[in-house]
Amino acid sequence: MSEVYAVRRTRVRECCNAGGSAAALVSRPANVRYLAGAAPEGAVLLLGRTEDVLVCAGPPDDRSPQARPDEALRVHVVPRAGGDAAVAAAGLAAAQGADSLAVEEHHLTVARHRAIRSVASRLRLADVGCTVEQLRVVKDEEEISCLRIGAEIADQALGELLESILVGRTERHLALELERRLVDHGADGPAFPTSVATGPHAGRPGHRPTDRRVEEGDFLSVCLGATYRGYRCEIGRTFVIGTAPADWQIELYDLVFSAQRAGRESLVPGAACRDVDRAARHVLDSAGYADALPALTGHGVGLEIDEDPRLTPAAMGKLDACVPVTVEPGVHLPGRGGVRIDDTLVVRPEADGGPELLTITTKELLAL
Amino acid sequence: MSEVYAVRRTRVRECCNAGGSAAALVSRPANVRYLAGAAPEGAVLLLGRTEDVLVCAGPPDDRSPQARPDEALRVHVVPRAGGDAAVAAAGLAAAQGADSLAVEEHHLTVARHRAIRSVASRLRLADVGCTVEQLRVVKDEEEISCLRIGAEIADQALGELLESILVGRTERHLALELERRLVDHGADGPAFPTSVATGPHAGRPGHRPTDRRVEEGDFLSVCLGATYRGYRCEIGRTFVIGTAPADWQIELYDLVFSAQRAGRESLVPGAACRDVDRAARHVLDSAGYADALPALTGHGVGLEIDEDPRLTPAAMGKLDACVPVTVEPGVHLPGRGGVRIDDTLVVRPEADGGPELLTITTKELLAL
Repeated sequence: MSEVYAVRRTRVRECCNAGGSAAALVSRPANVRYLAGAAPEGAVLLLGRTEDVLVCAGPPDDRSPQARPDEALRVHVVPRAGGDAAVAAAGLAAAQGADSLAVEEHHLTVARHRAIRSVASRLRLADVGCTVEQLRVVKDEEEISCLRIGAEIADQALGELLESILVGRTERHLALELERRLVDHGADGPAFPTSVATGPHAGRPGHRPTDRRVEEGDFLSVCLGATYRGYRCEIGRTFVIGTAPADWQIELYDLVFSAQRAGRESLVPGAACRDVDRAARHVLDSAGYADALPALTGHGVGLEIDEDPRLTPAAMGKLDACVPVTVEPGVHLPGRGGVRIDDTLVVRPEADGGPELLTITTKELLAL
Repeated sequence: MSEVYAVRRTRVRECCNAGGSAAALVSRPANVRYLAGAAPEGAVLLLGRTEDVLVCAGPPDDRSPQARPDEALRVHVVPRAGGDAAVAAAGLAAAQGADSLAVEEHHLTVARHRAIRSVASRLRLADVGCTVEQLRVVKDEEEISCLRIGAEIADQALGELLESILVGRTERHLALELERRLVDHGADGPAFPTSVATGPHAGRPGHRPTDRRVEEGDFLSVCLGATYRGYRCEIGRTFVIGTAPADWQIELYDLVFSAQRAGRESLVPGAACRDVDRAARHVLDSAGYADALPALTGHGVGLEIDEDPRLTPAAMGKLDACVPVTVEPGVHLPGRGGVRIDDTLVVRPEADGGPELLTITTKELLAL
């Protein structure tokens, strides 16, 4: 594994050098983990002129065996009374003879930036921008395999829930049970707060579980994900409670299903992100639901649950192979509920069989 | 409630005006919630020259009835494609005729700060510092009542766990069960990730639960807390598994108990934070455990789990009445385990009965 991290660090260093900076300071935790193998709380990574150093705010965390720092990295521990890891890293950069340091201006606070400037006044500070985030977009097979295992875990947790009695249980209880099952099956934890939405809440993106109980005739929409070795996936499904769905429920479900399929089928390398969004959105738009639609119909996943690319009407850029994304259109009708269907897929070329579906729970409309 | 928020906002505005700024932009979520009653994701609060405005990045969240924005506040929604709430708020400040705007430099990123400067170039940007955090230190009785209810919930969850069979269960399962019970009893959710540490892990501050199972003879240390209406409390206890604790376990427990009691008893209005720390630390130091001690022996709690004041050897400042703090000394012996005892208390004058203990679970050494 160590080589992988070294290669990633080299790529970031090359970008920085090309931008005129001798060294870079990476502070965003997911970026630190991507380049160093682990991101202990408060740690930053210095990509130095002569040496890379993981600068930790306290003794490194040995609790998670899957998240140990790359052994090829020097680890520098800042004594707790000695202040901030970013400031210490800037000091190390200066001591290595760097005259300029690129920082993550979209993550570093104004106050930390100022503190760095004051301890390393001869260091010219530049912006590394989203260099690391951009590198993270295309995944290697090791990363995809973590996402695949996470998706299996989420599928298992969801499958077990569907076999249990649901009527009368609250959204909160169902969400907690799903999270327990994720951990039972080997997840590090939930990838994001599990959403369980019943009746009028169903279909709302990001709905936070309430004490509402599942009732006969409800739509029930569930969105959950597992974190496995740091990688986060997402699955969302909508069900009907009771034996026979109402006609409006079948119609709405079929419509969202068609939209989601259109989105999935447009996931090819080279497709514009906005075109994938449009493929899904168009189906719902032309059925008259333009106002009921969320701002985005999908997004990248990886070490964070909401990464680039974003599938929105205004998105720039194209999809590459080996980019995992969600496709998650939905419709929510205030007061009535709605439908959301959400998969995690990996963009793959046609020759490799097209998009790889990681979350394989059925998308038939199940009546539970 | 509305008046409470208006009074708080007035106090912040007065501080800013005294510092020469006509308006202030509050972006740290806990600070936004403190001043506005709610902090929808991505929202910021403008304390304007002529009007205060809660600037939201999307439609405000109506999911949590306990966290609705103060009705006296104007709510301005930035269209999703229209960018950042902080930038929009700076635009509003300028439109109100402010010539200067104080921002939270310890929270705002360099990139957002730059974006604000570029849209509102005539606005002089200053630093509001930790004005809001400092106001938050002393709680009113309404806030303390939320903490008290949260502590009751945590006590209940812990009490129920102690009645169940523990041997053979993993740290992860016990932690999840505790979190489920917190929610069962009415918590918004856990106040922080629940820590369950067995055997050699016991006594480690912030230990993340693993798959290790509880064994006979183990120390078991548990640290959990409930969030209630946004307010977060904390309780930590250590137990012994089996009928008879070993001599070293009894000795270590008694020692940590004495240290924790010394800390609790020194919680009086006017006490220096470092003296409270020293009271607890001295007991452990003089028993030869100087190297096994954590960096802090307690901290404030409130809308965040780790607030000012901090009880450390280098802490500045004194305790006021109505400041809730944890007292949580512990000793961890690598390879053997350890003990941690953690309470949330409110500093009260002697005349009112001295420190108010919110977490009332027994601190006798229970053998489970």
